[in-house]
Parts: sequence; C-alpha cells; structure tokens
Amino acid sequence: MEKILSINNERIKNVVKLAEKSRERKAQKLFVVEGARELGIALASGYAIDSVFVCFDIFQKSEYPDVLESIDPAKATEVSVQVFQKMAYREGSDGIIALVKQQGHGLEDLKLSANPFVIVLEAVEKPGNLGAILRTADAAQADAIIICDPLTDVYNPNVIRSSVGCIFSVPTAVCSSQEALEWLKKKGIRTFAAELNSADFYQDTNFSVPSAIVMGTEADGLSDFWLKGADAHVKIPMRGKIDSLNVSVSTAVLTFEAMRQRGF
Amino acid sequence: MEKILSINNERIKNVVKLAEKSRERKAQKLFVVEGARELGIALASGYAIDSVFVCFDIFQKSEYPDVLESIDPAKATEVSVQVFQKMAYREGSDGIIALVKQQGHGLEDLKLSANPFVIVLEAVEKPGNLGAILRTADAAQADAIIICDPLTDVYNPNVIRSSVGCIFSVPTAVCSSQEALEWLKKKGIRTFAAELNSADFYQDTNFSVPSAIVMGTEADGLSDFWLKGADAHVKIPMRGKIDSLNVSVSTAVLTFEAMRQRGF
Repeated sequence: MEKILSINNERIKNVVKLAEKSRERKAQKLFVVEGARELGIALASGYAIDSVFVCFDIFQKSEYPDVLESIDPAKATEVSVQVFQKMAYREGSDGIIALVKQQGHGLEDLKLSANPFVIVLEAVEKPGNLGAILRTADAAQADAIIICDPLTDVYNPNVIRSSVGCIFSVPTAVCSSQEALEWLKKKGIRTFAAELNSADFYQDTNFSVPSAIVMGTEADGLSDFWLKGADAHVKIPMRGKIDSLNVSVSTAVLTFEAMRQRGF
Repeated sequence: MEKILSINNERIKNVVKLAEKSRERKAQKLFVVEGARELGIALASGYAIDSVFVCFDIFQKSEYPDVLESIDPAKATEVSVQVFQKMAYREGSDGIIALVKQQGHGLEDLKLSANPFVIVLEAVEKPGNLGAILRTADAAQADAIIICDPLTDVYNPNVIRSSVGCIFSVPTAVCSSQEALEWLKKKGIRTFAAELNSADFYQDTNFSVPSAIVMGTEADGLSDFWLKGADAHVKIPMRGKIDSLNVSVSTAVLTFEAMRQRGF
C-alpha cells in the first residue's frame, strides 16, 4: 500500500479542500467521510468509495475495524499520523477518512410507502439542525426528507457528523420549493405548513392520511410560497414567555405525533 | 460616561475571561450577556446588572434600544468599536455587553404548580442541547429544569445564546443526582427514566400525574443511579437503521406528549 508522509501532498490538500468547500464538493461530485462507523453506514447504504486514507497507528484502536475488509485495497492509501491530523476535522477520530462519490438526490428517486409521511425543510441553514432532523427521520422511519432551496449542502462534514450517518440511511431529495410542492400534489400527499399563527393545533390535526410537514427557518419561518401553497397550517401550542422552539425540536414533535396517530 | 479605547484595559480583559472560563464565572459570581434582546429578558427575569459596555456606533442599529433605559447610567461604560469587537463572541452583535450577577439555582428556590412537570438532565454536556431544551421547557411551560452533575455551566455563553434567553425565564436548579431524586420523592413527583431498553413506550405512559422525565447523555445514557432509582422507565419507539435521537429532540417528544395528555 502506498504511504503518504507529506502534508503538502496534492491528494491530502484535496481532502481538506473537499471538507471545507461546498463549491469543490459540487465540482468534483465527491465528499469526505471521517470515521469507520459512518463509512460503514455509507457503504451499507450503497455509496461508492473513491479513495480511502488510513493511519494505522490510530486505526488499530477503532471500534469498527471490519470496514476495511469491504474496501478494494487498490483504493486505499496509508498516511502518517501528521498527515492524518492535517485532514481530520473531528476530535477523537479513529484513523480513517474516505472520499465518497455523491449520489443523486432527485425527487424521482424517492420510493414511497403506501401511506407516506414526508418531512419538507425550506432553506435549512444550520448543519446541526439538519443532522438532528435526519436522526429523527431515521428513528421515526419517515419516507423521505425533501430539502428545498438549502443554504447548506447535504455533504457538509457537520451534517454527516451531526446526523451520525443518517444522511446515508434516510432517503433525501434536494430541489426547489416549486418542484417539491408539485411533486407532493401529484403524489396525493397533504401538505401541512408549520407556523406560529395557524388556526389549527398539531395535536388536533389528522396526520393519518398521506402527509408532509413543511418546516421553515428559525429566523424567518416559511416563505409566502409555502404559506399560500400548503393544504393546511399547523402550530404547536406555545405557552412560554419567549416562545421559540429549535427547528429540529418542532420537526420532531410533529413527526412523532404523526407516528403516534399512526400507531408507530 | 467613561469611554474605554484600549483593548488592554483590565475591565475589558475581564469580560473576555468571564466569557471563556467557567472557573472565572464561578469565582466572580458573574457572567456575560451579549445582545440587547437577551439582556432585556435577563432584566425582566429579575437578574441584576454588575456593569454594561456599550458601543454606540453599533448599538444605534439595535432592534431593542429600550434596554438602556432600565439600566443605571452609573453602571454603563462606553467602548470603541475595536474594544467591542475584542469582547464580542457573536456574529451580528448589536453593540451591548453586560456583566450580570449570577443567581442561586437551589432546589429549594423552585416553585411548583399543583400538578408539576419537571425535566431532569443528567450530566448534560453540549451547550447547544441545553439551550434547545431550555427553549422547549419555556414553550411547554415545564415547572422546572433540574440539571444534575453538569459538564457545562448554565452561564456558558453558548447556553445563553442557544437558549435565546430561556436560561433566564425557565426556573432552573443545579444539584447532584442524589439531591434531585430525594427532592422529587419528597415532592411526590413520579420519575420516568428515558432509556432505549425500557419495557414501556412513552405514548402508553400516563404523564398526567406529577411527573419528572429524566434524560441521560447521548453518549452513555443514564447512570445506574437513575436507572435503579427512578419510579418507571420509558422509551421512544425506534424503527430506523441507526436509532439515535438528539437528546434535545427526545426531551421535546416526551415533554410535548405529557402536555398533550394534560390538554396543554
């Protein structure tokens, strides 16, 4: 196995660039996965490896050593501790970093169950919120997340980290709000726009039909496009002095109420 | 009004130290509040000002200029843009930073309603999660949050920021797990330990009695102390491939189900 010892190696610099720059990820159609656990989930979810960098001094302590067995040795390169630390962006990383090929995230690729439940996010900005929502979607087995007009890309390292790999397991489409609404209508899915001024409380709303909840940003809520275009509006009772829920929290409250109504 | 022009001024250095170091906050019994909105909530919630630093070039654009009227001018100091930027830790800050006196967070200070609902957090670590849980507690009007054996302090600037001021509005006690459990028993509050292996699903659990949900850390869950000491165990159905909810999400799902059962 080839071994890279210099932090100035062009391939190492490219990993750093791909981790940092959305533009580069878009151009190269690759992204960075750090950690054996997440890489295992990506592979199990059908993602294809471009190349893998392993620092054996660190990787020998990994809790998920088996991941290497499923990777073509021709795609693996050894790196020194110093080179690994140059690439790593996490604390406590376990010695493996891969470049992985992006998948398409088209609406047409989504497979729906007989009675779908879909989470639509408009202009989601914080990677940590997107990550937490992906975990909720995985645990609740939502059919899909549709990300409209995003301000962060789904292959941002902080999305991958905060989703603990759910970015790979949850069917995810990325499109414009217009495309999403048309697709949901065509599929006969009722859209529920979440907003503070809605007349209807979520706990009195029937989510047992094919449903999509539509969540806006924390700063500005939903755009007029969704407020006018959605079939119904729902709100969560707010009884406090400050009345402000984290968007990943609101999404989870609505999602788990839908699952409760459906008998999980 | 005195004006500080040097970033080497001892008072300015002390603000930076208080923002960065939990140890200093503990020793001086002070903490830093940045932003007119949060400062207004702190004042309205009964917190007392130690001193205030204002950069008028920036503060003139604040959306909450009224906050200055409720502050004793003798406690205010003007600072230059450069000095303000040395102290500020947020993007888009609005020109005002205060040192505020800490309050006691004793169990004995908590005032409970007739049928209380309490959120207990064991060893919470990430300021962002604590902030999101405080927002949930405010919106749902939980009686209190009890923070046991915390790994972050409640006056961490990131808790204040991510709670959007709910750290001031939500009654919060900090104590050991032992003290919390004894106090809850004495008050006749039933404790529900959240854990993955519990026999009982949360949606089949009766939260209409005086209740406390007890949440562990994301990494390790609850300690044996709580698993053995709690009156009952509850779990959230996990149907996914990865089965991992953010702790602020799990807390919200349980809290809002309790509120739903209680008719909000």
